[in-house]
Amino acid sequence: MGGDSGPAAVVAGIATSASKNPEIGFVLNGPRDLLEPLVSKRRVLSGRVEYRDAADVVTMEDRPSQVVRQGKNTSMWSTLEAVRDGSAQGAVSCGNTGALMALSMIRLRKLPGVNRPAIAVLWPSRNPQGFNVMLDVGADVRADAQDLLQYALMGASYARNGLALKRPRIGLLNVGTEDHKGRPELKQAQALIGRFTDVANFDFVGFVEGSDIPGDVADVIVTDGFTGNVAIKTGEGTAQLIGDLLREAFKFSPLSRLASLLALTSLNRLKKRIDPRRVNGGVFLGLNGTVVKSHGSADATGISAAVKLAFQLSKSGFSEKLAQRVAYTAELSQDAGAPSGSATDENRKEGRA
Amino acid sequence: MGGDSGPAAVVAGIATSASKNPEIGFVLNGPRDLLEPLVSKRRVLSGRVEYRDAADVVTMEDRPSQVVRQGKNTSMWSTLEAVRDGSAQGAVSCGNTGALMALSMIRLRKLPGVNRPAIAVLWPSRNPQGFNVMLDVGADVRADAQDLLQYALMGASYARNGLALKRPRIGLLNVGTEDHKGRPELKQAQALIGRFTDVANFDFVGFVEGSDIPGDVADVIVTDGFTGNVAIKTGEGTAQLIGDLLREAFKFSPLSRLASLLALTSLNRLKKRIDPRRVNGGVFLGLNGTVVKSHGSADATGISAAVKLAFQLSKSGFSEKLAQRVAYTAELSQDAGAPSGSATDENRKEGRA
Repeated sequence: MGGDSGPAAVVAGIATSASKNPEIGFVLNGPRDLLEPLVSKRRVLSGRVEYRDAADVVTMEDRPSQVVRQGKNTSMWSTLEAVRDGSAQGAVSCGNTGALMALSMIRLRKLPGVNRPAIAVLWPSRNPQGFNVMLDVGADVRADAQDLLQYALMGASYARNGLALKRPRIGLLNVGTEDHKGRPELKQAQALIGRFTDVANFDFVGFVEGSDIPGDVADVIVTDGFTGNVAIKTGEGTAQLIGDLLREAFKFSPLSRLASLLALTSLNRLKKRIDPRRVNGGVFLGLNGTVVKSHGSADATGISAAVKLAFQLSKSGFSEKLAQRVAYTAELSQDAGAPSGSATDENRKEGRA
Repeated sequence: MGGDSGPAAVVAGIATSASKNPEIGFVLNGPRDLLEPLVSKRRVLSGRVEYRDAADVVTMEDRPSQVVRQGKNTSMWSTLEAVRDGSAQGAVSCGNTGALMALSMIRLRKLPGVNRPAIAVLWPSRNPQGFNVMLDVGADVRADAQDLLQYALMGASYARNGLALKRPRIGLLNVGTEDHKGRPELKQAQALIGRFTDVANFDFVGFVEGSDIPGDVADVIVTDGFTGNVAIKTGEGTAQLIGDLLREAFKFSPLSRLASLLALTSLNRLKKRIDPRRVNGGVFLGLNGTVVKSHGSADATGISAAVKLAFQLSKSGFSEKLAQRVAYTAELSQDAGAPSGSATDENRKEGRA
């Protein structure tokens, strides 16, 4: 209910998914009197939708803390409840990211050993697989060295399951690749992550820079949620600006208009290659359950992509595999020792509760 | 001497500048026996180059602290000395950014009232002027609320002088535009910057997101040097990836190759519009003197653009105007009160020394 385009786009999206994949069913959360007429127009959805009536909607302006306290009757709460009680194997939402993460932590709970869950996205890159995993892109504006280690472990698991990479290469985002660059927690994290390459089955390439996010030196880019969020939005904005200028350029003269017609197939292939809608969906990592956050402005294509991602992750048992991996390494990570600083220790105790 | 392409690219760049602008002369710093043969090949430079012999070179791997202690015989030191003693009106370097900033702070000193100098760049945007100013993009990985206020003041001055905007719009980079988003220092900075709009003659649009860096809601994007550095490198990397994919797309079939020929003029215009070489040069703001940091991999076109920028800033007396502006607002900023926290107060005392 909380997406920019409202429930019509969501229903159009699940209709697309339904027609592509006969194995999917849906639990739709929101005002039933509003949703049912939309669904009944799509024959492909007939008999495949269960409703959970929920009167309220979390808006983009609502504060997460407020939603946690007063959001019991919202469609977002109802959606997570469906995952919690096992009616749904995964949740997809186009709504308020902060509220979705806060509610997910309260209702689904963090995996044992995880302090801060993270949001991971796929980003178009020069890698053979065409994408890099990047996390955190906005679950939490803070991250200490232990959090960054957990992001590395979770990102590696996601890359193995989501991109079918046997031994993903992890990079730690910094302002330079030299050892003396960056903030203290990054230097601590660099030392810490390096100790887990064998036990957690990844390669660690050390510090990487912003230019490596669309590059090919790493498969997983680890950073805090503030930096990650700014980086992906800058990348998206830059790509959109270039796309718009390109369209303008092709409209400039009769000759360039003819050129654009001739190049149509090539340009469409390029567009498809970097279309953010095709990889729509930030995956929440570190929770008991699969939650995919679709772009707020997603259309049917975008929503269908997010549903596909949730389906694949649920089907592959990714959440359970990740839980095992984190539990296994959490003990080792404790042995490796948290960097000095009581805040970190406190956080970790809380995370293990 | 420290650029990726060595002194040949620098000499080619100043030759380009010399042929475009009869008012420019050059002080070249480095091993004279190496530089003189390169210069003598360019007739346009005849009689317009003065040499300062310097045997050592600061490499990209050198630590700033090391260069400050042991760099007396480097070309970088010599270059800044030429600005310091008034032989040159501005410095241009393609070398190690951290070392250049550290040496600049030691040799040219910070302006009274400035705690942390910043590096500002121009970024292609949807604004009528075609560019936004963004700072800090890498002078310092830290910035507290007072630093961010100074960046806003310095960025506004740069936008007035560099982009001829009468009343630039300042935006503070965050992970969302709502007031509750982001880190504590950003909330403090938001309150602080808002108090200076009239006295410092700018508009404050509040929080902006990564997507606004190439957008049109602000003319100046204020952020810390860590986030800013990651953002511009992500933007550059994304633009390069799209450019490469575009070239591939046009090579795909005989039809698309023909299309690229027909669209050549349009594509070149687009390329020129967003070519980072054309706006090559990070300007160091907050120092007694003009220092422009060119991209390390700059070619002749890039270096010529950096020289042009240094020339324009020196000629317009920008450094002096900025000094007046900062001095004027520094007192007011003190009156407005630093946010609680002794570190901030300490920093500011140091900055005023």
